[in-house]
Amino acid sequence: MEHVTVNFLRDDDLDAPVLIEGLPGIGHVGKLVAEHLIHELKAEKVAEISSLHFPPHVIVDEHGITHLVNNEIYRYERDGKATLFLVGDFQSNSAEGHYILAESYLDIAEELGVRRVYALGGYGVGHLVERPRVLSAVNMEHLRAEVEAAGGSFENAASGGMIVGASGLLLGLGEARGIEGICLMGETSGYIVDPKSADSLLSVLSRLTGIEVDHTSLQQRAADMEQIIANIQEAEEAKGREELSYIG
Amino acid sequence: MEHVTVNFLRDDDLDAPVLIEGLPGIGHVGKLVAEHLIHELKAEKVAEISSLHFPPHVIVDEHGITHLVNNEIYRYERDGKATLFLVGDFQSNSAEGHYILAESYLDIAEELGVRRVYALGGYGVGHLVERPRVLSAVNMEHLRAEVEAAGGSFENAASGGMIVGASGLLLGLGEARGIEGICLMGETSGYIVDPKSADSLLSVLSRLTGIEVDHTSLQQRAADMEQIIANIQEAEEAKGREELSYIG
Amino acid sequence: MEHVTVNFLRDDDLDAPVLIEGLPGIGHVGKLVAEHLIHELKAEKVAEISSLHFPPHVIVDEHGITHLVNNEIYRYERDGKATLFLVGDFQSNSAEGHYILAESYLDIAEELGVRRVYALGGYGVGHLVERPRVLSAVNMEHLRAEVEAAGGSFENAASGGMIVGASGLLLGLGEARGIEGICLMGETSGYIVDPKSADSLLSVLSRLTGIEVDHTSLQQRAADMEQIIANIQEAEEAKGREELSYIG
Amino acid sequence: MEHVTVNFLRDDDLDAPVLIEGLPGIGHVGKLVAEHLIHELKAEKVAEISSLHFPPHVIVDEHGITHLVNNEIYRYERDGKATLFLVGDFQSNSAEGHYILAESYLDIAEELGVRRVYALGGYGVGHLVERPRVLSAVNMEHLRAEVEAAGGSFENAASGGMIVGASGLLLGLGEARGIEGICLMGETSGYIVDPKSADSLLSVLSRLTGIEVDHTSLQQRAADMEQIIANIQEAEEAKGREELSYIG
Repeated sequence: MEHVTVNFLRDDDLDAPVLIEGLPGIGHVGKLVAEHLIHELKAEKVAEISSLHFPPHVIVDEHGITHLVNNEIYRYERDGKATLFLVGDFQSNSAEGHYILAESYLDIAEELGVRRVYALGGYGVGHLVERPRVLSAVNMEHLRAEVEAAGGSFENAASGGMIVGASGLLLGLGEARGIEGICLMGETSGYIVDPKSADSLLSVLSRLTGIEVDHTSLQQRAADMEQIIANIQEAEEAKGREELSYIG
Repeated sequence: MEHVTVNFLRDDDLDAPVLIEGLPGIGHVGKLVAEHLIHELKAEKVAEISSLHFPPHVIVDEHGITHLVNNEIYRYERDGKATLFLVGDFQSNSAEGHYILAESYLDIAEELGVRRVYALGGYGVGHLVERPRVLSAVNMEHLRAEVEAAGGSFENAASGGMIVGASGLLLGLGEARGIEGICLMGETSGYIVDPKSADSLLSVLSRLTGIEVDHTSLQQRAADMEQIIANIQEAEEAKGREELSYIG
Repeated sequence: MEHVTVNFLRDDDLDAPVLIEGLPGIGHVGKLVAEHLIHELKAEKVAEISSLHFPPHVIVDEHGITHLVNNEIYRYERDGKATLFLVGDFQSNSAEGHYILAESYLDIAEELGVRRVYALGGYGVGHLVERPRVLSAVNMEHLRAEVEAAGGSFENAASGGMIVGASGLLLGLGEARGIEGICLMGETSGYIVDPKSADSLLSVLSRLTGIEVDHTSLQQRAADMEQIIANIQEAEEAKGREELSYIG
Repeated sequence: MEHVTVNFLRDDDLDAPVLIEGLPGIGHVGKLVAEHLIHELKAEKVAEISSLHFPPHVIVDEHGITHLVNNEIYRYERDGKATLFLVGDFQSNSAEGHYILAESYLDIAEELGVRRVYALGGYGVGHLVERPRVLSAVNMEHLRAEVEAAGGSFENAASGGMIVGASGLLLGLGEARGIEGICLMGETSGYIVDPKSADSLLSVLSRLTGIEVDHTSLQQRAADMEQIIANIQEAEEAKGREELSYIG
């Protein structure tokens, strides 16, 4: 069995210079942004990627139909050029698998003409964030000015740090192939799925790619999440007051 | 060394359109059904499958003879057609091994002419079940009506979920080969080996395959297990009364 | 890098029908027996086996010289025939490695003409044993009578059980190659290195192979170990009496 | 994907008979020495080694640029001969990876003409050491006298022991290739990064290689570390006196 199996759903001669990766990670920020774009742009699924480095199970959908664990490539066409999206529910099971999968993603990307990858993710800070910054890293120095002009911050660079999994390796292994890599990380607590952080990230990404979409549904999810958090905080405060009055 | 070694015990030109898998899993429901069928039908062992993804030991039988850990294929012939059974005491040691073994099972299945796989298992619900349903999943939509007509339920589909290991991957990887896959899961607590759940599953499977066998020994084991559970419950209640009278 | 590297220290045309394996295991019983035989017979080292499935370190000897972790084959010549010994300080790191190493041992064995393997080990019973039995398993039924005639017991067979690691796999994988396999397991507590159990095992092995050696050094080590155990028991009893007199 | 990828930054015909390895380990002693030498000698980076046996992430530098996890080879030229240094922030993720990486390091070494490897590390003793010895091991007996003449001690050999990871395997696997291997281990507590131990080690290494460098910055770091330890000890003693006066 191959380590990674790619099933292309259609042949395509269209040049696809850009790949946007939004696999699961901290706060699911990257995944929220990529899936929002796919939904708003009505992007089309063009490939399925399965691998023995994914968990060994199938997912049962609401009709009782099984689906092998996979990641997927979607395609959005505009002005005779395609933008690709890499999304899915899983990353690799193992350290070796992360490398093997990232090389496969880059193989597909090269085959489809990709010359730049946007790797989207979250940047966990351990507390709720009122105005999430979009922290950034690039795999070639000349990319930095462009990211800053679009509103990406490099304030994280001072504290070093590392980027784990597909996002990191797409930049690290992509560099050796001459593929530009820009990693955008929405600031997030790390405790919740964070559509507010995704909303911030999407704004920066739109300025970089020129792809504008409606933010309404993402902002609605962000508002819903704010309400949930407010309710929890209120309940905890009420409980605190109760305990105080009980003691008093 | 090969990852998987298949030792065919006889050559065979017989077409075998159906494979029934009953490897170990929740409540050993699938295993109980497959082994009951093999026993009642006097099915014949036709292949042994060993693998470095199985645990590294041999089993000593009651005569002091060692047997390498393996899975086995049995064959039952009827009207010039064969039905195959995949059984054994182990699944893979590792996530990667699950994929590698499932692909091997499908290689053997294709070679023997299999066009449909029944993957049998348990569906753990965390409490004792009076009338176990047979929950289901299929890898192609057109199979659903047939399963429902035979008494399989798709009520589990509403809650999503996943199917882990050989049963899941036979459906997921089988789909790409055009092999129909039907997973039948007997509802079970998940705490005990469950012949009652197996009895229910066997009824649905018989309607689907047309293979009828005597259920007596399975029902006897179910009755024995009910008695064991009743004894335990009685003992616990007696203990509870004793503690109450001690307190009182 | 190869999974397993075999370095033959000399070329040899001598037929070697028998391999005796004594790798580390319960009570180090097999290791004690094999090393005692190598020492008494002045057997000669003929091959070194290293592998990436062994732990990743070197051992520093008393002269400060490093030695790569390996297993070794020794050879003892008698009447124009050789008996081989497989010994070493390690078994595999991983389940897969156990299979890969066992197949390599069998490759070497076949190349050197081996037609029978004696796999030596311990059989842990959880308590000190006055007269350790030599429990047995064979990979072909016709071998059983011969083992029983030499004093090997098959009483363990009643309780099933399994044989893990190199000893088990040499029998299990050897069978498929037509190599006879006899596993002899000295009964042992499992808590201590057990030369007394090794002494019993050696007697049975000598009857089977016709290779007789002096047992003195093994019996001396057994006597030393008995003394150590007696001292510990006495100290604990003395402590018990003291505590009682203190209470009284 | 290859297990190990080596990217040579320049072609070179220069003979490089010596490789000095200083990868991370106990007290980071080897790493401190190798990096100090690279810095003082202004050695030049000549190769980068990446591998799927390293952790799956990239490191973000102070400019926000990502760098794939790798190990590096530096080169220092003197009198028409080169000395190589192997440094980096990581060793392998797995036991198998340690072997695969060490063989790759030796492949590179052989290709560049290396005939001797110095593997540098720490020797943990569990307590602070006033005058750290440089404990040693060699992979060929004839090397011992030379190491002792340079001030290396073999007192550790009496207690056996083992050398884990790259340092150990470079000696163990190097021996089979005829590459001399000398392991120098600075005595260290094992609790702190230990520049004092590194300073001792560097003296012995300089006598062996003839490469002399200024020790000032290493000794300054050692003095700083001594001061930190003294401050901690003083604070703990003060706390102890306080607790005593409180009790009194």
